[in-house]
Amino acid sequence: MNDTRDIEALIDLMARLPGLGPRSARRAVLALLKRREALMAPLAQTMANVVLNARDCRTCGNIGTQDLCPICADPARATGEICVVETVADLWAMERSRAFKGRYHVLGGTLSALDSIGPEQLRIPALVDRIKADGITEVILALNITVEGQTTAHYIAEALEPLALRLTSLAQGVPMGGELDYLDDGTIGAALRARRGV
Amino acid sequence: MNDTRDIEALIDLMARLPGLGPRSARRAVLALLKRREALMAPLAQTMANVVLNARDCRTCGNIGTQDLCPICADPARATGEICVVETVADLWAMERSRAFKGRYHVLGGTLSALDSIGPEQLRIPALVDRIKADGITEVILALNITVEGQTTAHYIAEALEPLALRLTSLAQGVPMGGELDYLDDGTIGAALRARRGV
Repeated sequence: MNDTRDIEALIDLMARLPGLGPRSARRAVLALLKRREALMAPLAQTMANVVLNARDCRTCGNIGTQDLCPICADPARATGEICVVETVADLWAMERSRAFKGRYHVLGGTLSALDSIGPEQLRIPALVDRIKADGITEVILALNITVEGQTTAHYIAEALEPLALRLTSLAQGVPMGGELDYLDDGTIGAALRARRGV
Repeated sequence: MNDTRDIEALIDLMARLPGLGPRSARRAVLALLKRREALMAPLAQTMANVVLNARDCRTCGNIGTQDLCPICADPARATGEICVVETVADLWAMERSRAFKGRYHVLGGTLSALDSIGPEQLRIPALVDRIKADGITEVILALNITVEGQTTAHYIAEALEPLALRLTSLAQGVPMGGELDYLDDGTIGAALRARRGV
């Protein structure tokens, strides 16, 4: 009697998504079962399309459906600036801010001796080649302010030093809406050291 | 440049699941994109299977892949007891408890004049027919302890009264692990009224 095998398999698979446990996966599947034609069918179809078509951009590592992602394919984004990010999630976050008009380089992680992730795995040699070939004038390191992110930023900064270009990183300081009382000491310290004239 | 249209559609669809907002849907989709073959492909396939095969049991309203759900098809569950529940989610909850060995009747909601949900929409006439035909000896009303659930339970109790069978409902009282200090007054009152000799 493996009649509900697929439904149980669906719950198990949904429970493997971040932010969903067994309980919320069950709720999600019940919602899908209630709206089989309106929601589950298009979801299944869209996922199948993405599985079939999604691929990593060969230049920057972003996800798109072509060999070149929309940003690398857009001539308007050839500003001579490359923003280096850890993950595609970080790239999306940068894009949502609409603050950056150049192109990206997605490392896919941070350096980690423990997980044997070296410069090659993060495509740092490819970044160097790209800078030389594309006439890049500025590299913005937008890595996370974590030990791993900053170690990786430091390594990249050293690797790019001979190239004589402008190398910057995102400013550290008090976030928008930030209340000093709730900020950690590190952020306050960094904001104070980077203080500016009014 | 509708290159990432499918990925954006996927985020929109995922955000329509209960418990997922735009932000967690994005995180879920990024996790799926990272594990396209290991997670997204089987998920798409399983969903497509369920869309194709899932159907409501014609007897009890449970979801299965046949005209009869596994519980209605299992002769061992013909105990003469029917447990009436509001939704398939409630049926699953009852099954998880492993406390009930009979069959179910899924109403699919509660009576609501506002939403024009009457006895026919809840398949209450079908319940009456089933009781007469199948030699049912006990009906257990396992509806939620809400105004709607209890109104519906009351209606069903009246409809079944002429049938002269045992009609029961789940006991109300202090839940397992319940601390009196955190319980609402209604639960404590119900538990006191239903007190039993030790």
